[in-house]
Amino acid sequence: MASRKVIELFYDVVSPYSWLGFEVLCRYRNVWNIDLKLRPAFLGGVMKGSGNKPPGLIPNKFLYMGTDLSRLAEYFAVPLSFPNDPDETMFRKGSLAAMRFITAVGERYGADEPSVERVSREIWMRVWCRDEDITLPASLSEATLKAGLPAREVEELLQLAASEKIKDKLKSVTQEALDYGAFGFPLIVCHVDGKREMFFGSDRFELMAHCIGEKWLGPQPIKLTAKV
Amino acid sequence: MASRKVIELFYDVVSPYSWLGFEVLCRYRNVWNIDLKLRPAFLGGVMKGSGNKPPGLIPNKFLYMGTDLSRLAEYFAVPLSFPNDPDETMFRKGSLAAMRFITAVGERYGADEPSVERVSREIWMRVWCRDEDITLPASLSEATLKAGLPAREVEELLQLAASEKIKDKLKSVTQEALDYGAFGFPLIVCHVDGKREMFFGSDRFELMAHCIGEKWLGPQPIKLTAKV
Repeated sequence: MASRKVIELFYDVVSPYSWLGFEVLCRYRNVWNIDLKLRPAFLGGVMKGSGNKPPGLIPNKFLYMGTDLSRLAEYFAVPLSFPNDPDETMFRKGSLAAMRFITAVGERYGADEPSVERVSREIWMRVWCRDEDITLPASLSEATLKAGLPAREVEELLQLAASEKIKDKLKSVTQEALDYGAFGFPLIVCHVDGKREMFFGSDRFELMAHCIGEKWLGPQPIKLTAKV
Repeated sequence: MASRKVIELFYDVVSPYSWLGFEVLCRYRNVWNIDLKLRPAFLGGVMKGSGNKPPGLIPNKFLYMGTDLSRLAEYFAVPLSFPNDPDETMFRKGSLAAMRFITAVGERYGADEPSVERVSREIWMRVWCRDEDITLPASLSEATLKAGLPAREVEELLQLAASEKIKDKLKSVTQEALDYGAFGFPLIVCHVDGKREMFFGSDRFELMAHCIGEKWLGPQPIKLTAKV
């Protein structure tokens, strides 16, 4: 049997295209011969570090993104819907607190445990499905409970998320993404037989399959386990 | 039999992603129930009109584009290769003369004739395969002859390309693309049962098939008829 391929997914919950990529890769863990490594990171840092600007600043691009995302969400069966005020959600409020929190979850339970996946999904369900806050401790607690983590540990996670250790961890994962050549998220890095293939966005799965010697079978829609 | 779907492809030969989309859609004329309308336009005008900036200005994005394009070119079986000095090719020299010339070919032979397809492909072969000039009359003549058009008509086409009529035609097609919401090329506009679906780029074919009720069967590589 061929050795398992490692796929790293760098993502931020502020990014709706990251959500699509996240769900597809989580599904393909059961389809492809891969180990998926979730790498929560900070998109703001990647944009700053690469000198990139958010695509939404160009009016035609912003309009297109709305159409593109709703078509993709339907096709990928991800319950994504635009917040009422995307500017407020994405730029003024941002995702720093949320990404520190997810980093803390990874630190506490191990990056390969399902907790990181479940908490990330519940935070996406808040911000990119139900248009709910993801900046306040109460919001992050609620997502954590929905993800099935024990109530007694939420306070500890919130404290951990505010620690220097976690701030530094998030910075260093973000820097890793930049070192791979990131200029936005999702960034997907495939390691196959000592070779590295890097893909940006959620629209290269067919090409990715071709490059890593797997078969693309479409978005494989399944019922999400997260509660709407 | 269902009525044929009309697909408009707005493209500029300066854009390598446009070439990929062009070849795929030309192949799918024989696979999907579509009428493909080639709409040569001017990318410079679309970037200016939409306020967009070329992606290559962000260093990480530029590096990624190189990798992305060569992987896609191999997968799509399009003989694309980067020019030695992409800046010189894309920005300093540009494609205005070439796009006026292709517009003139459409005017002379009819937009639905194979001439526009063949001449466009031969110009792409020059700029995005063999790193040859596409700004001088001699270069455009050579491409036209390779495309199989009669030698006696080349001079007439060059004169037509310099006319106000053709300049205005190119401007108006470019404006049509902007009115559809373009911020780059390729722009693909599908008309199905009175509904319009707009796609940017050469990475939405699977989604496009889903939206227009056709089946995506991969890039359908075939031997190009153009001579390398």
